[in-house]
Amino acid sequence: MELPKSILNVVKQFSLLPGVGERTALRQCLYMVKWDEEQIRGFSESILNLSTLNRCRSCGMYCDQNICEVCSDEKRQESKTLCIVESISDCMAIENSERFDGIYQVLGGTLNPLMGIGPEELELDKLVERVENLNISEIILALNPSVEGDATCSYLKDIMPQTVKIHRIGFGVPIGGSLEYLDSMTISKALENRKIM
Amino acid sequence: MELPKSILNVVKQFSLLPGVGERTALRQCLYMVKWDEEQIRGFSESILNLSTLNRCRSCGMYCDQNICEVCSDEKRQESKTLCIVESISDCMAIENSERFDGIYQVLGGTLNPLMGIGPEELELDKLVERVENLNISEIILALNPSVEGDATCSYLKDIMPQTVKIHRIGFGVPIGGSLEYLDSMTISKALENRKIM
Repeated sequence: MELPKSILNVVKQFSLLPGVGERTALRQCLYMVKWDEEQIRGFSESILNLSTLNRCRSCGMYCDQNICEVCSDEKRQESKTLCIVESISDCMAIENSERFDGIYQVLGGTLNPLMGIGPEELELDKLVERVENLNISEIILALNPSVEGDATCSYLKDIMPQTVKIHRIGFGVPIGGSLEYLDSMTISKALENRKIM
Repeated sequence: MELPKSILNVVKQFSLLPGVGERTALRQCLYMVKWDEEQIRGFSESILNLSTLNRCRSCGMYCDQNICEVCSDEKRQESKTLCIVESISDCMAIENSERFDGIYQVLGGTLNPLMGIGPEELELDKLVERVENLNISEIILALNPSVEGDATCSYLKDIMPQTVKIHRIGFGVPIGGSLEYLDSMTISKALENRKIM
């Protein structure tokens, strides 16, 4: 028995999302099919609205207006610390920790020559310009630890003005983590980053 | 930092789906945000099309036309066996087994007085009419084993014409299942339903 085209189409679309296979997609679709027209329209429209989402002109974060909440906060604008992150979710994770009151720059990725992502794709020249214009004194590189992340950090260090202090976030044992279950790379980073008590 | 309204809205909508929490919804939303406008439009429209999905006039299955594939298959229409299922996914599971060549009736639920679902909501009078019109000789009740499923089966048995043979699908140890991990209800059903070899 062939399923109706409209169901197959939704299943195909949902399967594009991360972590959603065909079975999950079908289950979710059959659940939605029971909704009334208004609910379905609401769902559909909410997604359509994503295509008109603004990005903050200065930091690249998604926002309702042209300037995001952080970039329009005068107090935070006075801070001379810039935190560079790969993605919006990374930026949100840092915001949720409530331990950073500077401003952000969302790169939107890392340098990856094999995938055709170079300094131009990430608009790194604009980033250097921003650092100079805002008189940034400290940069915190909050890129994830990976081959590409490491390479991007080295590259950023090289192109930034010499006067700017450049830090990378600390690596080590996560809070709540257990040494027993951590990989050896993390353990060696934790040993390397040991601190006097 | 507050997220843009369009993202929050999509997160809210996705969280309505079964098995999707806020974190998953946000992850999927941030994934979609990177799509181009055409992709987002395609996704959105596929969902909108669900609101115009047809249901087969005779069995209640979702379909493209007014009559579903099974109900428009002359060979299957000649069969005098009707299989009653709760939901479309149950119907599909039976079709996938390729061991049933009769026709279906999708109830769309089970009797559940506490939730206000009575014989009228499930249109059971129409079902009896269909059984009489098609001269059905055997009914297979393929409702799931639950308090409501059991009660619905008893009710259906009572309202069907006396001439119709009424069966309920067999319960027992699933193929590939291990006695060790099965609940005692299943084990007792399996013992009860033992067969001479």
